[in-house]
Amino acid sequence: MNAEQQELIQAREQIERLPKSKIRAIANASLGLEGLIPLWFGESDLPTPEFIKQAGADALMQGCTFYTHNRGIPELRTTLAEYASGLHARPVDVDRITVTASGCVAINLIQQVLTDPGSNTVIVGPLWPNLIETIHIMGGETRIVPLTFGEQAWTLDLDRLFDQVDDKTTAILINSPGNPTGWVMERDGQQAVLDFCRPRGLWFISDEVYHRLVYDRPVAPSLLDLAEPDDKVLVINSFSKTWAMSGWRLGWVTAPPRLGEVFEKVIEFHYSCPAHFTQRAGVTAVMEGEQFVRDMVQRYRAARDLSVERLRAMPRIQVHSPPGSFYLFFAVDGMTDSVAECRRFVSEARVGLAPGAAFGEAGEGFIRLCFANSLETLHEAFDRMASLLG
Amino acid sequence: MNAEQQELIQAREQIERLPKSKIRAIANASLGLEGLIPLWFGESDLPTPEFIKQAGADALMQGCTFYTHNRGIPELRTTLAEYASGLHARPVDVDRITVTASGCVAINLIQQVLTDPGSNTVIVGPLWPNLIETIHIMGGETRIVPLTFGEQAWTLDLDRLFDQVDDKTTAILINSPGNPTGWVMERDGQQAVLDFCRPRGLWFISDEVYHRLVYDRPVAPSLLDLAEPDDKVLVINSFSKTWAMSGWRLGWVTAPPRLGEVFEKVIEFHYSCPAHFTQRAGVTAVMEGEQFVRDMVQRYRAARDLSVERLRAMPRIQVHSPPGSFYLFFAVDGMTDSVAECRRFVSEARVGLAPGAAFGEAGEGFIRLCFANSLETLHEAFDRMASLLG
Repeated sequence: MNAEQQELIQAREQIERLPKSKIRAIANASLGLEGLIPLWFGESDLPTPEFIKQAGADALMQGCTFYTHNRGIPELRTTLAEYASGLHARPVDVDRITVTASGCVAINLIQQVLTDPGSNTVIVGPLWPNLIETIHIMGGETRIVPLTFGEQAWTLDLDRLFDQVDDKTTAILINSPGNPTGWVMERDGQQAVLDFCRPRGLWFISDEVYHRLVYDRPVAPSLLDLAEPDDKVLVINSFSKTWAMSGWRLGWVTAPPRLGEVFEKVIEFHYSCPAHFTQRAGVTAVMEGEQFVRDMVQRYRAARDLSVERLRAMPRIQVHSPPGSFYLFFAVDGMTDSVAECRRFVSEARVGLAPGAAFGEAGEGFIRLCFANSLETLHEAFDRMASLLG
Repeated sequence: MNAEQQELIQAREQIERLPKSKIRAIANASLGLEGLIPLWFGESDLPTPEFIKQAGADALMQGCTFYTHNRGIPELRTTLAEYASGLHARPVDVDRITVTASGCVAINLIQQVLTDPGSNTVIVGPLWPNLIETIHIMGGETRIVPLTFGEQAWTLDLDRLFDQVDDKTTAILINSPGNPTGWVMERDGQQAVLDFCRPRGLWFISDEVYHRLVYDRPVAPSLLDLAEPDDKVLVINSFSKTWAMSGWRLGWVTAPPRLGEVFEKVIEFHYSCPAHFTQRAGVTAVMEGEQFVRDMVQRYRAARDLSVERLRAMPRIQVHSPPGSFYLFFAVDGMTDSVAECRRFVSEARVGLAPGAAFGEAGEGFIRLCFANSLETLHEAFDRMASLLG
């Protein structure tokens, strides 16, 4: 095979243009590095709790190995509807719930359903690249309105957000609590965006996968507190963060009932259904997981407070204590290339961090650290970082 | 909410136009019907074998609950490369293997990578609707060339296939052994299509998920017997049929090495990775599953032979004994509406069958029956059908 033929092996242009994950690029290059403390990915250092693993293993051994309903087994959908109704200000009916094969897949599914080539989505940044690139894959454009790293906290200028909307805008997409910033949108902000979307017929896509990882209340403000069932509102959620189930691939969407039949047919063509035994474990996670969630959040709060304290002791670093998520997104004075800096942290300090540039242009100058780890490990990581940043 | 607002809740046109699954439509309407014999879906009546379930449960309890490599854990990729190399005429290197979260997801992923709006794909029909609709979702067109229900077997006219190709054609897509017909494409046919594709720079997408469900040889003719690593050939496979793992959601694609980096970034945005413990079970299935596969095929062969014999005894029915798959696709004399007929089979005979119309226009006049069942159950089903068709 010659070079010319090699060149022929390509994806369509839209796909070739997609950026590689800048986190994965650094992480993959460091596989097997001894003594590395990995704080780059968005997952807990602890495996899924025993009672959930056991429920999954039991379902498996009992033979839950067949196809299920496209939108999930009825028991899981009912359980999630009751969970949401108990957590939020308004009841959520089961016909609004669609179980998905991860939060990630939910995002992909939504973009397949909504994004026409040439349309655009207005998005609050910096943010997790999947929320952007799934739109590009469908031929849509993205308009990122960055949060401001203010004196006390990350803040959003709603007027700047609304200014980006034009007649080709399909949706406004907001991730709160936010990855990577930990920013939490308060209820009045959510209401203002909803009020803006309603008369314009815009979709409001709310990624709420960190809804339980908040440190000043039991659950983050949610569109489910505000939206009518038939509002054009899509709320994305996941089992990954709340029940430490990242490697299982299970999530759900809350949507207007009309979209139920749409999701049903697209899921049939997309992934058919989530794994059966995984859905059984999901029922157990939601029904019996509240104590686990409380303990986990307490553990993360201590980790957050320690991490903020240690980082603030480093002269070149500025950081806000995040009200939500399990990330710190800190500014490093004088840093212009976060990817190079993160490579240096790996090679010289054996600490794995995610470069801010991975979360869009607005992220450059920052580094993301996942503090879902033991205090001991975090102390060790900060000791190593201090020697480099000192 | 008034009617006007209700109307606003829609997917984009491409999605609204997608047909609902005609199999699901009948099946969903019959949920809970007592004494029903369901032969409509493409899965075995038996759960996944014990040793595979145990491997999954063990991996789960051992804490394989974290994210993995996008393209699958190295051990599973290596295992699949060795499996393919042992099974086919040419070695398959691990850099060609990408593990996916089902064969279904592999199809979706491939269409995201290849299908631009306005392009077309030429396809052998009748076939499983996912292979068609995933192209429509991406804005592509499909051109179906139907197999002929000949005197002795289903046959393909290659000239008719090639005649459908024009300058907007991206790929030729063939599913062999085929769902729903059980047709198996012989090596000379595959070679002819490959020879046609090569100088034209066309992709050859070969869905081979039924590769082990063949009754006259150990494995079906495969593109992996013929293709160079850098040929524009994509081979889709799945754990669902070969190891009775339909409810797990695990598959793989064999592709030119160049596409590895492309799949890696698209998977990151699509579903991140397949479930970790599921991949561990996949390793066990491939490494220890050969005896199971042999026993399963023997069981299916007996089921096939019985089913053909029983159907041929019914005067209105014509059927070929399929060399592959676990389906019979039989013609019913005088039937013009397979959906109505299948509804009648449910309500009057409590036998669940899939209407031929579910597999495209060329499928009307036929009904699909999945014979992956016990002889006893099949006898009972045919007794009931005979009373209706007598």
